[in-house]
Amino acid sequence: MKIVLLGSGNVATHLAKALKAKGEDVIQVYSPNLNHAKSLAVTIGAEGLNDLTEIERNADLYIISIKDDAIESVAKSLKNVTGLVVHTSGTTDIRILSSQVKRAGVFYPLQTFSKGKEVSFENIPLCIEANDESQLSILNTLAAKISHRVYELDGEKRKVLHLAAVFACNFANHLYTLANKILNQNGLDFEIIKPLIAETADKVMNNLPENVQTGPAVRADENTLNKHLSMLTDMPELQNIYQTLSDSIKLTLK
Amino acid sequence: MKIVLLGSGNVATHLAKALKAKGEDVIQVYSPNLNHAKSLAVTIGAEGLNDLTEIERNADLYIISIKDDAIESVAKSLKNVTGLVVHTSGTTDIRILSSQVKRAGVFYPLQTFSKGKEVSFENIPLCIEANDESQLSILNTLAAKISHRVYELDGEKRKVLHLAAVFACNFANHLYTLANKILNQNGLDFEIIKPLIAETADKVMNNLPENVQTGPAVRADENTLNKHLSMLTDMPELQNIYQTLSDSIKLTLK
Repeated sequence: MKIVLLGSGNVATHLAKALKAKGEDVIQVYSPNLNHAKSLAVTIGAEGLNDLTEIERNADLYIISIKDDAIESVAKSLKNVTGLVVHTSGTTDIRILSSQVKRAGVFYPLQTFSKGKEVSFENIPLCIEANDESQLSILNTLAAKISHRVYELDGEKRKVLHLAAVFACNFANHLYTLANKILNQNGLDFEIIKPLIAETADKVMNNLPENVQTGPAVRADENTLNKHLSMLTDMPELQNIYQTLSDSIKLTLK
Repeated sequence: MKIVLLGSGNVATHLAKALKAKGEDVIQVYSPNLNHAKSLAVTIGAEGLNDLTEIERNADLYIISIKDDAIESVAKSLKNVTGLVVHTSGTTDIRILSSQVKRAGVFYPLQTFSKGKEVSFENIPLCIEANDESQLSILNTLAAKISHRVYELDGEKRKVLHLAAVFACNFANHLYTLANKILNQNGLDFEIIKPLIAETADKVMNNLPENVQTGPAVRADENTLNKHLSMLTDMPELQNIYQTLSDSIKLTLK
């Protein structure tokens, strides 16, 4: 497949490398910042460009992997292409595309990508959606090449998944940050808590999280809960989070 | 070393097996519930008992691994032993023991233990404390046998560590539970989100969490934040948590 990639951020970068590794032909990388476009393009043997009018009109697939609120305006520049146009957003409706282009779809990788951290695409859930069966079949074939986990999900379910991901990923990472803040303020290093973080995630690979909850809140250990709250007196923001999440854990006991 | 274990819960069980695997001689397991005591004792070739007066008085080490608020009363029954008496609690002061027994210490494994899930003790941080150098040395030697990560921490630092662990482990696991609740209510399976949970934890093994935060809050993407909040209208508890944690993430941007 001849593929044009519109975007050069974390998702675009990891996706481009995974496609290239499976022999797909990514011919162009577009970014409004020419340096960003070229710097990604050179790693996969593509052309880097920052002018939407220079985009190849005869590609098979156009992948728009940019900020949600910029997707529509970039899609407008692809009005007359015959290839399939997809975005990679968890929250954006497919109609943003189908109102602009002939053939529209979604190709959403459910993962957290960071610069400089390699991820194996094979285990990343790819959530696909298209306006008709033949387009869906094209996406399915491509997705199955780079991942073992392909899910056909409509927009409503994809948005739910994205919301759940904020809890399980973005908020979990922020709790690591808060833990590190508590450690640092007391001369302790983040290193000491890493095995605990790894095991906490590993436990739910084979158990539902509600079945392996530990800690003072699930034991209704008011003595420890009160000690912890009093240790956070000088950090009211963390005290509030501690109270809110402990209360929420206690609700599961009823 | 001749060791007596007082307790038969998750920490006691995993610790007993790790000690046994390194050739230590756990001679007795005490629990108020005789079945619990025997069921653990039989796996490590020890005697199970539920009568504190039957405890061997000449052991080298007594490990009290029970609920925090029961430690003191069990320690009272060890008043006249000459061996070292330790507890495994993150939040309990060493003085609870040293006010009762001659030689007191703390042997706190920083990990989340669940029945039926094996963990490798080698990577578990063991936090030790004792009232004098010779006792500390004994604990250090024992700890180093079963773990590569031994930390000498005083009670204040240990309590801080325990508090940080609640954020990084107990609260993170609860966020997995909430994510699963959102998925289930919409006919999606927890399975789909597992690779994301694994990667989120894996990322902070080599990066500080504040440097790899992703998601709508850290992008100050108000459009997505508002969409998510409106999706949680029927779940006010989750809506409150979403708002609280998103606000906290935004504070890191200042």
